[in-house]
Amino acid sequence: MTSTLPLDAVRGWTTDPVVRAAHRLDRSGFDPGSAPDAVVHAESVEDVVAVLAHAQATRTPVVVRGAGSGLSGGAVAGEGSLVLDLTRLNRITELSAADELAVVEPGVITADLDAAAAAHGLRYAPDPASAAISTIGGNIATNAGGLRCAKYGVTRDSVLGLDVVLADGRRIRTGRRTVKGVAGYDLTGLFVGSEGTLGVIVGATVRLRPIPVRTATLAAWFTDFGAAAAATAALTAARLQPAVAELLDAGCLEALGADGADSGAFLLVQTDGFGADAEIEAVRAVVEPFAVRVDLAADEAEAEALLATRRGALPALEKLGRVLVEDVAVPRSRLPEAVAAITEISRRSGLRIATMAHAGDGNLHPILVVDGDLDDHVWATAAEVFQTALDLGGTLTGEHGVGLLKRRWLRAELGDTAHDLQRELKAALDPHGLLNPGKAL
Amino acid sequence: MTSTLPLDAVRGWTTDPVVRAAHRLDRSGFDPGSAPDAVVHAESVEDVVAVLAHAQATRTPVVVRGAGSGLSGGAVAGEGSLVLDLTRLNRITELSAADELAVVEPGVITADLDAAAAAHGLRYAPDPASAAISTIGGNIATNAGGLRCAKYGVTRDSVLGLDVVLADGRRIRTGRRTVKGVAGYDLTGLFVGSEGTLGVIVGATVRLRPIPVRTATLAAWFTDFGAAAAATAALTAARLQPAVAELLDAGCLEALGADGADSGAFLLVQTDGFGADAEIEAVRAVVEPFAVRVDLAADEAEAEALLATRRGALPALEKLGRVLVEDVAVPRSRLPEAVAAITEISRRSGLRIATMAHAGDGNLHPILVVDGDLDDHVWATAAEVFQTALDLGGTLTGEHGVGLLKRRWLRAELGDTAHDLQRELKAALDPHGLLNPGKAL
Ligand SMILES: Cc1cc2nc3c(=O)[nH]c(=O)nc-3n(C[C@H](O)[C@H](O)[C@H](O)COP(=O)(O)OP(=O)(O)OC[C@H]3O[C@@H](n4cnc5c(N)ncnc54)[C@H](O)[C@@H]3O)c2cc1C
Ligand SMILES: Cc1cc2nc3c(=O)[nH]c(=O)nc-3n(C[C@H](O)[C@H](O)[C@H](O)COP(=O)(O)OP(=O)(O)OC[C@H]3O[C@@H](n4cnc5c(N)ncnc54)[C@H](O)[C@@H]3O)c2cc1C
Repeated sequence: MTSTLPLDAVRGWTTDPVVRAAHRLDRSGFDPGSAPDAVVHAESVEDVVAVLAHAQATRTPVVVRGAGSGLSGGAVAGEGSLVLDLTRLNRITELSAADELAVVEPGVITADLDAAAAAHGLRYAPDPASAAISTIGGNIATNAGGLRCAKYGVTRDSVLGLDVVLADGRRIRTGRRTVKGVAGYDLTGLFVGSEGTLGVIVGATVRLRPIPVRTATLAAWFTDFGAAAAATAALTAARLQPAVAELLDAGCLEALGADGADSGAFLLVQTDGFGADAEIEAVRAVVEPFAVRVDLAADEAEAEALLATRRGALPALEKLGRVLVEDVAVPRSRLPEAVAAITEISRRSGLRIATMAHAGDGNLHPILVVDGDLDDHVWATAAEVFQTALDLGGTLTGEHGVGLLKRRWLRAELGDTAHDLQRELKAALDPHGLLNPGKAL
Repeated sequence: MTSTLPLDAVRGWTTDPVVRAAHRLDRSGFDPGSAPDAVVHAESVEDVVAVLAHAQATRTPVVVRGAGSGLSGGAVAGEGSLVLDLTRLNRITELSAADELAVVEPGVITADLDAAAAAHGLRYAPDPASAAISTIGGNIATNAGGLRCAKYGVTRDSVLGLDVVLADGRRIRTGRRTVKGVAGYDLTGLFVGSEGTLGVIVGATVRLRPIPVRTATLAAWFTDFGAAAAATAALTAARLQPAVAELLDAGCLEALGADGADSGAFLLVQTDGFGADAEIEAVRAVVEPFAVRVDLAADEAEAEALLATRRGALPALEKLGRVLVEDVAVPRSRLPEAVAAITEISRRSGLRIATMAHAGDGNLHPILVVDGDLDDHVWATAAEVFQTALDLGGTLTGEHGVGLLKRRWLRAELGDTAHDLQRELKAALDPHGLLNPGKAL
């Protein structure tokens, strides 16, 4: 266990067993069965450089960590590794309302940046449901999504530039402060979503966007998921593109205590901007023929009540057992097939699986609710869900990342050559494989 | 000259001097002074693979070429090189209205894809002014922008996945058919904007978006550029974000024959969507105090007339001499300083420079109008424009690419370490430097 020590040249490190134990897990439910050898709470970029120098000298694997709210095991760390925790690097260095951008350290909490922007009528668009706990660095490393991203894009679309420390300690700046720019290869895009395997993100220049002048909100209830999916397909066919379009299946509604004809599926739609009201009327006209009931929020309070149904689904499922949150995505037209297949997997496996979906982009969160441990049967069932997504032309992960949990299926999704090329890039940037080995790739 | 021949294993090649001479140039105004040794018109991916195999075997540089409409010398080809022309690979393989995407070959003309999408109420959002002649492959390789990109993003934002032949002949697929996905590193982003130096794009899955239900258009005239810039800054401060915001300076207006109090600057604004009319009224209220005159288009014909002013600027300048179109970008708040500095460079150098700008994203096109050849004085003046952009925290190129013309300044923009890393990536993907050597990096 002490093989990787001493860390004398590195400030802020600890081998306190309680801290180490807490830093072995993220929110994926995966337990590595051991704890990292030490944890470093970096307080400056120099600390990060020192940790990487130590790691190079001793060939010690480094697991970079934000808030540890990840759902795919990306920040999980076991014996023989060193955790580099960045939560103390949490300053908003600059907020320019004129250029609609902010410069932040990686440990800034997502919601804190959004709140700081709000003081200028701006917002940080990516809104993972974990915004109150996750860090910007973690969001960038996983290319996090959220409800708004159907219209405003994922984290990648809000990152203008990065400040990165490479495995060998070199520090680079990628991207720029301008909205547009094509000088050189897109290194920013390469580090976004790289799950701590290519470099340590120690700073970011992110884009802020105006808070929409108005929003309008509608909810619809259906007898079954097929009707709800038909309604969303009809929205697409009508060339409507709301800011938010969220689906809950019967399993989610059951957990929320619903029964009756309107408990087959739930659709939440939000429009925004100067035309929010006209647009929501257009949405209502399209959805109504498919629904049992449609509620249009008359005011902010009613809108909140409708949003509460969507927000309450995961907590309601968590009350029923331990949850494993999956994150597959399929082309939108395959949503009904995906949900039907998942319902069938649930029936066959005897495991409760409830599904919520970002209808606007085909991203599904099938949630496995488990009585006891996450045993082989659970993982085998999750595997069937992954395979379903790939069979439908989709992906293993829309926004949570590959981490530890989905590595086995990655080659199947990417194909051999693209998978090889990814490894070649990793080898070029981190030849000794010290950054988050065994993750993502 | 025949050093790179014979090309016996490759179909569709020619050494016809007329074809070779035509394929030595793009639209940058740069003449390499010699012609490529041969030109291959690929008609299949197999042809592309055969060309690369030949290039590897004979260590012959390959210049990939779309329509040759580039403005930075990216497709320029001289003696010793082989041009791989992809314009015959021009089929739209699939257009899915349900998934709002298309699968295309690289030689598809941008406007043809947009027209095919329009039949389904959709459009291909990136709209370079060259859309009627440029290819999707060229747009992707340069990450082209256009008027709509302030709101709808640049080419990168519309590319879901790519089909690429690597320098060593390996064929890979990057990305996916889903809107979202984070499995593996973002190879798609790496190839977008890589200017033919990392691989040959032989297919693309691109996103289509709904045509907005309405647009509204307004034009404003000002006594000087400072007033126009103040108006756009006021739009930002009012947290308005129109779909199009285009500026012309006095030099552009002079070429268009304007004089009087309203010939100092011109601003064109377009809003779209369900709230287009309300939004344009909000824009008008903000702009009016800064302007000499504001015209709100009452109908489609009036809107076209206003757009014609913006569209007419480059042709009007082309009548005055040979033009060199630059493409710097600065943080939006620095726009007035950038235009002032460019006006001063024009005065000092005695060269006419007129500037049009995408105000929404700080991308400026200073257009140098030259009497005779593009001589050292012209390039030295262009260099001053580049330096101005860098000094203001901006970039050499917002959307046209580095190509040949801006390579000298690239290291200054990227910094040594990021520049080195770019070279390392290039070396990993194209160890013998056969793809477009001497360009982009
Ligand atoms: C209740 C709940 C709801 C959630 N909702 C969403 C959602 O809506 N959308 C969504 O996308 N995700 C969601 N998540 C997942 C998770 O919050 C996101 O993945 C988040 O981006 C992780 O941020 P973090 O700071 O916790 O990162 P961590 O979990 O600490 O790390 C995640 C990965 O990023 C790497 N990493 C972290 N910081 C850095 C850095 N500075 N440099 C390099 N690598 C780094 C780690 O090594 C690891 O691989 C949710 C999680 C929970 C618990
Ligand atoms: C009148 C005019 C207006 C313009 N307006 C705009 C504008 O508004 N916005 C804008 O961004 N640009 C504009 N341009 C520049 C130019 O049209 C764009 O750069 C366009 O994307 C180039 O496409 P192309 O097919 O002509 O590519 P080419 O000029 O043939 O090639 C451009 C670069 O891409 C590479 N390349 C081409 N095809 C491939 C492929 N399949 N695989 C790999 N590499 C490839 C080439 O090697 C070269 O480096 C304009 C040009 C003109 C002449």
